[in-house]
Amino acid sequence: MTDAETLADRLASGELRLYELDDHTDAETAAAARRLYVERETGADLATVGEYAFDAGEADSNIENMIGGAQIPMGVAGPVEIDGSGADGEFFLPLATTEGALLASVNRGLSAIQDSGGATARVTDSGMTRAPVFQVAGVAEAEAVIEWVDDNTDRLREAAESTTSHGELLEIDPYVVGDNVFLRFIYDTKDAMGMNMATIATREASEVIEAETPARLVALSGNLCSDKKPAAINAIEGRGRSVTADAVIDRGLVEERLNTTPEAMAEGNTRKNLIGSAKAASLGFNAHAANTVAAAFLATGQDAAQVVEGANAITTMEAREDGLYASISFASLEVGTVGGGTSLDTQSEALDVLGLGGGGDPAGANADGLAEVIATGALAGELSLVAAFCSRHLSSAHEELGR
Amino acid sequence: MTDAETLADRLASGELRLYELDDHTDAETAAAARRLYVERETGADLATVGEYAFDAGEADSNIENMIGGAQIPMGVAGPVEIDGSGADGEFFLPLATTEGALLASVNRGLSAIQDSGGATARVTDSGMTRAPVFQVAGVAEAEAVIEWVDDNTDRLREAAESTTSHGELLEIDPYVVGDNVFLRFIYDTKDAMGMNMATIATREASEVIEAETPARLVALSGNLCSDKKPAAINAIEGRGRSVTADAVIDRGLVEERLNTTPEAMAEGNTRKNLIGSAKAASLGFNAHAANTVAAAFLATGQDAAQVVEGANAITTMEAREDGLYASISFASLEVGTVGGGTSLDTQSEALDVLGLGGGGDPAGANADGLAEVIATGALAGELSLVAAFCSRHLSSAHEELGR
Amino acid sequence: MTDAETLADRLASGELRLYELDDHTDAETAAAARRLYVERETGADLATVGEYAFDAGEADSNIENMIGGAQIPMGVAGPVEIDGSGADGEFFLPLATTEGALLASVNRGLSAIQDSGGATARVTDSGMTRAPVFQVAGVAEAEAVIEWVDDNTDRLREAAESTTSHGELLEIDPYVVGDNVFLRFIYDTKDAMGMNMATIATREASEVIEAETPARLVALSGNLCSDKKPAAINAIEGRGRSVTADAVIDRGLVEERLNTTPEAMAEGNTRKNLIGSAKAASLGFNAHAANTVAAAFLATGQDAAQVVEGANAITTMEAREDGLYASISFASLEVGTVGGGTSLDTQSEALDVLGLGGGGDPAGANADGLAEVIATGALAGELSLVAAFCSRHLSSAHEELGR
Amino acid sequence: MTDAETLADRLASGELRLYELDDHTDAETAAAARRLYVERETGADLATVGEYAFDAGEADSNIENMIGGAQIPMGVAGPVEIDGSGADGEFFLPLATTEGALLASVNRGLSAIQDSGGATARVTDSGMTRAPVFQVAGVAEAEAVIEWVDDNTDRLREAAESTTSHGELLEIDPYVVGDNVFLRFIYDTKDAMGMNMATIATREASEVIEAETPARLVALSGNLCSDKKPAAINAIEGRGRSVTADAVIDRGLVEERLNTTPEAMAEGNTRKNLIGSAKAASLGFNAHAANTVAAAFLATGQDAAQVVEGANAITTMEAREDGLYASISFASLEVGTVGGGTSLDTQSEALDVLGLGGGGDPAGANADGLAEVIATGALAGELSLVAAFCSRHLSSAHEELGR
Repeated sequence: MTDAETLADRLASGELRLYELDDHTDAETAAAARRLYVERETGADLATVGEYAFDAGEADSNIENMIGGAQIPMGVAGPVEIDGSGADGEFFLPLATTEGALLASVNRGLSAIQDSGGATARVTDSGMTRAPVFQVAGVAEAEAVIEWVDDNTDRLREAAESTTSHGELLEIDPYVVGDNVFLRFIYDTKDAMGMNMATIATREASEVIEAETPARLVALSGNLCSDKKPAAINAIEGRGRSVTADAVIDRGLVEERLNTTPEAMAEGNTRKNLIGSAKAASLGFNAHAANTVAAAFLATGQDAAQVVEGANAITTMEAREDGLYASISFASLEVGTVGGGTSLDTQSEALDVLGLGGGGDPAGANADGLAEVIATGALAGELSLVAAFCSRHLSSAHEELGR
Repeated sequence: MTDAETLADRLASGELRLYELDDHTDAETAAAARRLYVERETGADLATVGEYAFDAGEADSNIENMIGGAQIPMGVAGPVEIDGSGADGEFFLPLATTEGALLASVNRGLSAIQDSGGATARVTDSGMTRAPVFQVAGVAEAEAVIEWVDDNTDRLREAAESTTSHGELLEIDPYVVGDNVFLRFIYDTKDAMGMNMATIATREASEVIEAETPARLVALSGNLCSDKKPAAINAIEGRGRSVTADAVIDRGLVEERLNTTPEAMAEGNTRKNLIGSAKAASLGFNAHAANTVAAAFLATGQDAAQVVEGANAITTMEAREDGLYASISFASLEVGTVGGGTSLDTQSEALDVLGLGGGGDPAGANADGLAEVIATGALAGELSLVAAFCSRHLSSAHEELGR
Repeated sequence: MTDAETLADRLASGELRLYELDDHTDAETAAAARRLYVERETGADLATVGEYAFDAGEADSNIENMIGGAQIPMGVAGPVEIDGSGADGEFFLPLATTEGALLASVNRGLSAIQDSGGATARVTDSGMTRAPVFQVAGVAEAEAVIEWVDDNTDRLREAAESTTSHGELLEIDPYVVGDNVFLRFIYDTKDAMGMNMATIATREASEVIEAETPARLVALSGNLCSDKKPAAINAIEGRGRSVTADAVIDRGLVEERLNTTPEAMAEGNTRKNLIGSAKAASLGFNAHAANTVAAAFLATGQDAAQVVEGANAITTMEAREDGLYASISFASLEVGTVGGGTSLDTQSEALDVLGLGGGGDPAGANADGLAEVIATGALAGELSLVAAFCSRHLSSAHEELGR
Repeated sequence: MTDAETLADRLASGELRLYELDDHTDAETAAAARRLYVERETGADLATVGEYAFDAGEADSNIENMIGGAQIPMGVAGPVEIDGSGADGEFFLPLATTEGALLASVNRGLSAIQDSGGATARVTDSGMTRAPVFQVAGVAEAEAVIEWVDDNTDRLREAAESTTSHGELLEIDPYVVGDNVFLRFIYDTKDAMGMNMATIATREASEVIEAETPARLVALSGNLCSDKKPAAINAIEGRGRSVTADAVIDRGLVEERLNTTPEAMAEGNTRKNLIGSAKAASLGFNAHAANTVAAAFLATGQDAAQVVEGANAITTMEAREDGLYASISFASLEVGTVGGGTSLDTQSEALDVLGLGGGGDPAGANADGLAEVIATGALAGELSLVAAFCSRHLSSAHEELGR
């Protein structure tokens, strides 16, 4: 009887609980025991889940109750030339997805961008946020607390930054709702996505506030951060990186390769991505930006749940004399090249494909670059999809006319 | 020189393009060649990306330009008893994530639910949507087109359903914005998430509309669907499954195990999840529902980009005499147990853990069940997180009082 | 000592309260007494407030604690030819406002519309809503209650319609959030704005639901109606009238009279009204539609607080060969030509200017017409404002070029 | 034949246009001529519209094409004690409305507040905004322009403030969407609502930007201001005054006068105003705040169309040991005590009732005070309405139990 079998028996008998296994054996054996136990309990076969290629022991900061790995097909799109602040040069974009046609769509768009001279991309705003909610007696006390915070920002900065070697507190924005005071702390977290850093730093500052004012901390996150929720505050004020990618696609390329015209694409974009999204009361004015974001997040070890606010993007297209100007502007793309899932084996390799793994020089440049690459990939996806539905009509028009 | 090396050389020379490889060799070799080529171009080592366990040939409907796989750690939480319409019995919930503490949080919440007698879950609304946008001459023509659609719904249903063996057209909802007519087609797609099914069926119906009315189809998706965008139309009208899970946690359990009280949790939920989200102008009135949704989606082969609308959820908590009533209501959880990424090896195994792989009996029951299981998992995550921040204060209050 | 003085003394002594005056004297004297009392208490002079021209006695269904009247300047814009379903012919539009330039702006736009052959307008959807919230035990009971409502819609319709001679129940849409069931009742209220009618009818139906199911009525309005709140549910599903007005402005007129081009106006509209509003996370994709709505509401006796949802409007502009196609689509314009403030003297006269006072033939036609006229006025305001900022640039360009 | 008749004839003959009358006669005669003309054209009788009490000549900055006045019944509610920063003391609140029961509702709520010791109110944020949109070549140029603006804020402030004797530029917030740069200018406009002041100042600053950078001004308002649109940017960042009013209503008063309990009101508020509004995807988490805002705006000469963003308010209620804590927090209440409609006769008298007419001491204090009074009035309306539906159930429960 193997160790895993013995442990699975003890799980079955109730002697051990799933999460206690790590105290009794190494990570790999614990995972094997859990698989065995779950297989027996459910009748499922977990053989492939067990064939993971990463180091189980090193994944312990990424998961609890591990049984193995989910494997998502990964592909590459590109290459594409990007003129960015963090990403400057030619890039292949690794994407992991289970949705057929996505890679092909991004690839087709990148090829049009590439043949038009590449894309420009810029991070226009940056900052990771955490917004604790405090309870006060009423609005008079709220006013006093906010005044105190305003007068003691340096002291709060000192407390917050004492918990981190990299992070910098940029700003504290106050919001009052009745006897609730929300303080939105904004940090520069460099190449880390930074949510943990922001949380720990904010806790330290919050303790100072609790000690010095009558405010009582209710929760370190009061949902004005706003993490993993489709909130307008992120769409407007940003979270993580606000990043825009744009390109001018040569008129000839639009006509010959994409089988449509800049004018048709601009009109199609307006009807679908602007007017349609307006009527849907959406924060996403784009065709399918979330597809590229999700696929790039999975490939590079980002937090998959943050695709939610990653979807806050506006796509614009306009016909210019020389071709089609197209852009996509993400408000809240939360990415990092250190921490989180970035050091897992396959994810780390994907970051290496981009040359953006680890800390950047200067600090923050790699995460900026990653945001710029993802924005460029999403721009490609927009171009490809809008061209597809516009060209359909050109061709169907052709058919009707017998050409 | 291996086949892969030869092909990589041809890629490097520009003789072949990345997407053309599939025409020259098998899927596995093509992936190897792409890896080799990308390794040479970028200096990255893609060894672990190449150690994928699924069948490359079978993944060709999931990805293009494949180079291998991204591996995400997978764990299990539970078991938990669920009284649902599709999910009825005891379940272990497979979750794949790179974010530490998530599994532990869900597991802790599930244990509190389990020891309180389990959760109840129901799909309260269901329907996959696709909303093409048509151009008309103006509002007078818009009125006429909508009247025609209204008078010819049976004919459009026939056209739409001619493309699918399972899907049923439930409704067509019209919206007018100037010279744009949006028709939101709603389908019952049974156990499939159903977006492709809905798209193909809607194309067929749209062709009838184009043939019989002056309306010109602009795009098969006019963004009122709304797919992968954080849109209020989904939060209100639903897309995929609208599903609620709830439970009453025994007062004793809340106090002893979670170290807080039903009253404190209800108040904390109101301040953070209701008032905080209100101030953030959010469609997500919850603590971290997207975490569980994303992790369950990755484990079971759902579309990761649909986490966006999966995050449209409202968490409620209220103190009752016997304990804490807690609920989470998702408006637009798009899930399937057939199609998409569900047949990939690790994902299929995860669905087997739930006993919900493949088509349900009756049709749709498995996807209903999956929605109910995910909602229950998310409810557990909410309980765990809200309890965590509430108990902090109880303990600090204790400290201050010297107890 | 006049009656009013005597009564004012009794108010001052605390013997009478403000709202009790109506039981002691006629409406006019009561108003005079209150004025006198308030003048003494505050030192204000209320002479002009007292110079109201309407019948105080008849205003008692419009106000309590009356002291007199607020007087808002009223003007007219037009005439304009409208091809509508309820409004068909030539109209002068009465507007009451304190904001200078508004009348002139609407007037200029109407003149451009008129000289291009008039506007087309259509009510594309119609229905007044009231959405009570019920408490149930949990989601299982919610499902049962909704099923009961679905099975007993005829009985609920009968109950609802027993309270009104005109109104018709069109639909009941259910929404579940945890242990809350919201039922959105939608009524055809003909020429009345209909909120009171909808409330009374829904109360009757709700009592049946309470008697026959375990659901407990919490509030007759559960905020999914949604009345006087800037809610997406109205912007998407409509409330009151959904109405679109459009027109094609001759290219020559745009160039000569508005000093700009269709192309410039289309572009300006996209940048400001579509992209700008998108970034602002707005439900209003227009320049200043609320101005016309508010001014028309004040002139014709509508509920001024419903300007809130009246502002849910999308303006589109596109260059066509023959000129500029412009449209405005209101989602939730709540208007009536009977009831509310419509029978007050000045308001009733304003409705007569439109020829739309009182009940229409068929019932509902007058309120439809009023919605169409307001939409046309707002369209004029949009044209005028967009042309203004576009022409600025044309002229400044001219200046730079020395022309 | 009177002058008015002669002029009406000339209007009828097409010799004169409506707006040209002011050049031919005094304001009063012009209005009479227009009335006559419109009466003849439409068959309407405009006698009461003509019985206005304000000075027509002085209204010429408020209206064009004037025909007379709309008269809205005005009443008073109160008195109520307010502890505010601008409003400190006891106030009667003048309200103008055509919606019966509103005054009574506010009055009942104010009485409960008064007997509990009055309300507290504070302006927690203040600033009038104007956000021009500029076109640039692309995101690289956008970055450069924003950097220039950042480096030259002092110069822009000087330009902006050169146009106003009172206003101060507080901040310029940049937003980028593709080739659009939005700059949100925020001003302290003291006792003026300030939109005109902000517009003129921003035009001056925008000209500097156009002269010194490659940016081209598209429109002085790019809809991120955002004026008269239901936009999240105002609900989050504020516009005009962000103001909160709160009060603790004695438990005994809640029970005896309002016939309910603090616990029932807190629960009712959560289900309707928080959960219901959440599900409606609303920016208004209140019962009927817009009613009080609209009525106070009409009485005091505010811009009626700004009720739209005035409706961005969150109402909270919680049971405390001593009673019910209730609050309402407005994000964007745009009010002034000078300019706009405030100097019209009836409106000026209403401001005198509040003792808040004209410029405050210090500057801004009167507008602050007006915001605080309106917030208190709205709080009263919330208390009254929530109590009403809660007490219904208490009483119906009583009936069922035979008490």
